[in-house]
Amino acid sequence: MENQVYLDRISKVRKAMRQEGISLFLVGPSSNLFYLGGYAPGGDERLLLLVLPAEGVSPGDPFVLANLLYQDQVKGIPVQDVVLWKDGEDPFALLKREIEKRHWPLGKVALEGQLPAFFSLPIGRQFPGADFSLGASLVDPLRLIKDAAELDLIRRASKLADQALEAAIERGAYWLGKTEAQFWDTLAAELRGRGIKPWDAIVAAGPNGAVPHHLTGDRLIEKGQGLLVDFGGRLEGYNTDCTRTFHFGRPSGEFEQVYRTVLEAHLAAEAAAQPGNRLGDVDQAARSVIERAGYGPYFTHRTGHGLGIDTHEGASVNKGEETLIAPGMVFSIEPGIYLSGRLGVRIENLVAITKDGPEPLHSFPRELSIIE
Amino acid sequence: MENQVYLDRISKVRKAMRQEGISLFLVGPSSNLFYLGGYAPGGDERLLLLVLPAEGVSPGDPFVLANLLYQDQVKGIPVQDVVLWKDGEDPFALLKREIEKRHWPLGKVALEGQLPAFFSLPIGRQFPGADFSLGASLVDPLRLIKDAAELDLIRRASKLADQALEAAIERGAYWLGKTEAQFWDTLAAELRGRGIKPWDAIVAAGPNGAVPHHLTGDRLIEKGQGLLVDFGGRLEGYNTDCTRTFHFGRPSGEFEQVYRTVLEAHLAAEAAAQPGNRLGDVDQAARSVIERAGYGPYFTHRTGHGLGIDTHEGASVNKGEETLIAPGMVFSIEPGIYLSGRLGVRIENLVAITKDGPEPLHSFPRELSIIE
Repeated sequence: MENQVYLDRISKVRKAMRQEGISLFLVGPSSNLFYLGGYAPGGDERLLLLVLPAEGVSPGDPFVLANLLYQDQVKGIPVQDVVLWKDGEDPFALLKREIEKRHWPLGKVALEGQLPAFFSLPIGRQFPGADFSLGASLVDPLRLIKDAAELDLIRRASKLADQALEAAIERGAYWLGKTEAQFWDTLAAELRGRGIKPWDAIVAAGPNGAVPHHLTGDRLIEKGQGLLVDFGGRLEGYNTDCTRTFHFGRPSGEFEQVYRTVLEAHLAAEAAAQPGNRLGDVDQAARSVIERAGYGPYFTHRTGHGLGIDTHEGASVNKGEETLIAPGMVFSIEPGIYLSGRLGVRIENLVAITKDGPEPLHSFPRELSIIE
Repeated sequence: MENQVYLDRISKVRKAMRQEGISLFLVGPSSNLFYLGGYAPGGDERLLLLVLPAEGVSPGDPFVLANLLYQDQVKGIPVQDVVLWKDGEDPFALLKREIEKRHWPLGKVALEGQLPAFFSLPIGRQFPGADFSLGASLVDPLRLIKDAAELDLIRRASKLADQALEAAIERGAYWLGKTEAQFWDTLAAELRGRGIKPWDAIVAAGPNGAVPHHLTGDRLIEKGQGLLVDFGGRLEGYNTDCTRTFHFGRPSGEFEQVYRTVLEAHLAAEAAAQPGNRLGDVDQAARSVIERAGYGPYFTHRTGHGLGIDTHEGASVNKGEETLIAPGMVFSIEPGIYLSGRLGVRIENLVAITKDGPEPLHSFPRELSIIE
């Protein structure tokens, strides 16, 4: 993304800091650092921070504190002022000196929530008078609403995921007698070949589909059973997430009825995903279809979750969730019905909210695919 | 592993707490929780803690604090006393009440280093009088020395990794014209097929081998070039890690000389990995071979690192490292020479230290394999 994107985000956070009376915000390796600086280090034991003063402080430029080893990597963060430390130095004392040197007022200091105790405790010791709090309210509201560049990445990732699934399922009856893990190996390769870095999928054959968080394993794909595939990954740091449930051979009447109910619930939820509605309305739309069909107790999770840099972030599409749906939100719609020991069906799309309504980010068919 | 293994580890930690005057140790989702309780949750925003009082406190049984959603999962932790909280409750206030109820003395409270700020800050607010510190010294010395069950897992994982590499490289000239990523897809499938959960490998063709942390990509495997493969994964929570460098077609004199030097350095380091020597001696043994051959500036990293539940833990096989080598340590020996833009060679084995000396955990040949 353009440096200006990051600078704008940093500027919005600094403005929010002033509004909340927070003087300093310390951001360590995390999805927030990726959001604000375009840099996603794995994080190790060496202190690395983006140090943001509130807006209006003078001299007011943020700085990055990093170990010399990360000199090249942190260059990507669009902040001019980089303070480097060497192995053997005390980076926490250095942090204090750098802040004092800038005459920044202390007081309320926000810590990024992911900051591990091996950073936060020594930081706390350097600033015994500071009033520490969490910085969630400074960044979460921004991340909830995706900008054009973010939407573009999630849209592209979702399209590529559709193509990968199509390439894998195209083999049709080839999969009979193969394992869940073999299907996943193929799908993962298709994703990687398209530039998506996959996370562990849920590939669930037959009754395994009834376990919402099943671990892909050695169960065989068999005729007369379903295959639930919940998969995704990252494209340039942004996630996609999709679920389809297939059936090999002729489905039972029960399977068909469950599938029809889940699909109807999915479509009802999508229709409710309108700007101005509450997130809870989307959940309610899906849930009431499933309840009316008598499967209420078998839909055991929320209807969806927001997503972006993290696989779960921002919106929660859940019962009673009052947050208003707004353009720029991206969340999953993924109702399911799980009949323990027998079968499970889930259909999941990501939707991006536009001012005109929900835009489904996946175009892979949602109707039941029967594979002969 | 047997419950008794975890109970013994917990007991050792509580003994160390008393020796260090620490009254309470709070362990959140982390590799330390896996080590102490056999439970490796991904960690989410819901407070989950193993709460350990120092040895000799009465009533002195540790307890687990977890959200009701995790009721089943935390049953695996061999601690009888489980305190559950529901969404909507304040788990931090509950933590305080539970500790007060037990009349445990507060004072020095250790936090597990991975505990994120969104846990550690609210905990700090509940115990304003407590003196917080990090719990590293309580667990790290234990984890440095692997017990028989841990060694067995790392040994098995390493053997399976060898087999997977053999199965992938067996295709020989088939790989010419294929990409690094295609090689990795095959190797990953071979690993998964053997029960290893692979982490992202470094598959580096030709000059990419000169980038020690290269990201596997689209470069083609070509005749007249090397292929560096640094890979591994987890078996039941424990890691293996191995590197081999192959050559397709006849190698240049330079490649052969570099390979010979790295192999000699590797073997010298292995020979130095004797109980009673210092970890720095192992680094020195590898480094002096490479320096004598005139490649000193091109060996740009330490010789190895400890490993276990984390891919990097415990021992650091580095210049000047004074820690004495002891039976039960497991670390990598992985010298390399990197000639930027031309070629790179690294040869990595894990070794387990026994009282009789180093036991290499990989049996895949270390001599140069030339693939025609």
